Amino acid sequence: MRIKGLEHVAVVVADLHKVGSILRDAFGLVPDEVENVEKDRVQVMKFSLGNTDLELVTPTDEMSAVSRFIDKKGEGLHHICLAVEDIDEAMAELKEKGVVLIDQEPRLGATGCRVAFVHPKSVGGVLVELSEKREDNGE
Amino acid sequence: MRIKGLEHVAVVVADLHKVGSILRDAFGLVPDEVENVEKDRVQVMKFSLGNTDLELVTPTDEMSAVSRFIDKKGEGLHHICLAVEDIDEAMAELKEKGVVLIDQEPRLGATGCRVAFVHPKSVGGVLVELSEKREDNGE
Repeated sequence: MRIKGLEHVAVVVADLHKVGSILRDAFGLVPDEVENVEKDRVQVMKFSLGNTDLELVTPTDEMSAVSRFIDKKGEGLHHICLAVEDIDEAMAELKEKGVVLIDQEPRLGATGCRVAFVHPKSVGGVLVELSEKREDNGE
Repeated sequence: MRIKGLEHVAVVVADLHKVGSILRDAFGLVPDEVENVEKDRVQVMKFSLGNTDLELVTPTDEMSAVSRFIDKKGEGLHHICLAVEDIDEAMAELKEKGVVLIDQEPRLGATGCRVAFVHPKSVGGVLVELSEKREDNGE
């Protein structure tokens, strides 16, 4: 497979605006508008770091997977997202090599990308998202 | 302060070569030579992701801080490193804004950079390293 780069690093936080203010006021980072991702029951605040993005993710209700993550592990680094050229090819290759996938088929991500998650037990405890940018989403 | 980009994401693993093999054989990533960082009692295997680096870090003995991290939290994402233009200025600004620093002065990093760590309690549970590349280190 061809990895094009690190698309983003995601951080789970309990209070989006508290941590967002620190990144803005102390680190000088400028956030995009907060995005609601209803199907995952989260809000996302994205900051560009120049070469990649940092995403703050917070649950909108206690049924969110991210809410259970905070209960279990506390706030902190959650996953990394790798941009791939061809997600179907990437998933087939990983399966062939015995890597465990959480998603068996790509699903639609927040900005029209096709995404899938790899199980952390296959990658040294790191939750890895794969993301393929679609040609027709205007990006 | 001016953040120039994400320098690397660091992942703590118990078995460097096991996880390294997965990244190489399944994800198609090519590692640099393994580096011994004796003062931190760790070995580091670095992979370029194109726009930034992924570092696998493993303890060389049980006195390593990274060994205690594995005992407490298990393998997984450990810290992010932000490249800054001027680390003295960055640290002064963070202190002024009430952000808690682990290192009060920059120290020498593995590749001749000047580095300092910011306490996770100030940044949504994320351990953040700041790194200033030195002009005279040939990089």
